[in-house]
Amino acid sequence: MRIDIISVVPKLMESFFAHSILKRGQEAGHVEVVLHDLRDYSLSKQRQVDDYAFGGGAGMVMSVEPIARCIRHLQSERHYDEIIYMTPDGETFNQQTANQLSLQGNLLFLCGHYKGVDQRVRDMFITKEISIGDYVLSGGELAAAVCADAIIRLIPGVLNDETSALTDSFQDNLLAPPVYTRPAEFEGVGIPPVLLSGHEAKINEWRFEQSIERTKTRRPDLYQKSGL
Amino acid sequence: MRIDIISVVPKLMESFFAHSILKRGQEAGHVEVVLHDLRDYSLSKQRQVDDYAFGGGAGMVMSVEPIARCIRHLQSERHYDEIIYMTPDGETFNQQTANQLSLQGNLLFLCGHYKGVDQRVRDMFITKEISIGDYVLSGGELAAAVCADAIIRLIPGVLNDETSALTDSFQDNLLAPPVYTRPAEFEGVGIPPVLLSGHEAKINEWRFEQSIERTKTRRPDLYQKSGL
Repeated sequence: MRIDIISVVPKLMESFFAHSILKRGQEAGHVEVVLHDLRDYSLSKQRQVDDYAFGGGAGMVMSVEPIARCIRHLQSERHYDEIIYMTPDGETFNQQTANQLSLQGNLLFLCGHYKGVDQRVRDMFITKEISIGDYVLSGGELAAAVCADAIIRLIPGVLNDETSALTDSFQDNLLAPPVYTRPAEFEGVGIPPVLLSGHEAKINEWRFEQSIERTKTRRPDLYQKSGL
Repeated sequence: MRIDIISVVPKLMESFFAHSILKRGQEAGHVEVVLHDLRDYSLSKQRQVDDYAFGGGAGMVMSVEPIARCIRHLQSERHYDEIIYMTPDGETFNQQTANQLSLQGNLLFLCGHYKGVDQRVRDMFITKEISIGDYVLSGGELAAAVCADAIIRLIPGVLNDETSALTDSFQDNLLAPPVYTRPAEFEGVGIPPVLLSGHEAKINEWRFEQSIERTKTRRPDLYQKSGL
């Protein structure tokens, strides 16, 4: 998979893609992530990429021209399965979307900043608009990094142990059960005895019950979707 | 405000806090963000902070002892209003939570990694559990950065123009209206004429209608909450 990300502050994302599983995923050849500085596509000497909003009001708007130039330049090099704009009013990102996008070949992310991009960018170039949640960030960079992370870790071979992702929260609309590790007693607080029983079927049963209980209590909306 | 973040890969977050409004917010003295390497609190020479899960299964679990040492060390230096664990099964983060947390003095974030932390950490130390959305990330670092960003930009003085945050999506359960900037015509595509009218009342009316329309279409669940 190849992921291109267009941003006015690509540096903001550098440390993230230089560490952890994203680094390993890139080194192992499972994924290539390329950051693009939108200012390289500016039409002005001052590398300007934004301007005042028509109709007035606080906050700058990202201009259509540099974005159009950048997207078309990248499109001339390869086909993108989706051109995704990160925006608070997009469709809410979830694990199902992450699963679907992890099967694609080339994804292009455009990070909004300031008050967002000129609406014509969205109308003319964007194939999918994604929000990572009901809150506002200072820019789409963190949101794009979140999407990329959720997607990349699902690509086979990126996680050390492939079964690891399958037992995560949300894969079957259930939250993960509690986990414990050594020591078995910490300052007088022990762990559920079943986990020390060595009885695999009982342990699995306990974990499943805990998943259900936790989902019912914390996320009744998810529990309904699970169909249990 | 002071924000402390505990992580096994603090480097992953460095570039986020070194750029953009987060940098400006720190330089202007509105907020201080301090990253802590959990391995500095390990009990072992190998700086180990995780171990196999009791009861078996894929994925490592973060041990209670290093986390307890780190949290207690920080607590000996100051009181924390909230000790927040970033986890997919926490309460879903939203703009209201961001508003509330932006009024606090000291926040401590613990980033989960691998299969998460020993449940006893959550039972004994954590005052609030937050999820940024219904998807799984490779760690809590990006999630903590997302929360910090959403919170910090609400602190008065951090954004250049204080009215800017008030017109964002979600502040009144409405999505933001479309925005446009120069040129007024791009490849034959114009902008809504009202935005060129100079008639402020009509422009505000148009924006409000667009907000309502967009919220109704894209997020009927939010529209219901708006009470309109």
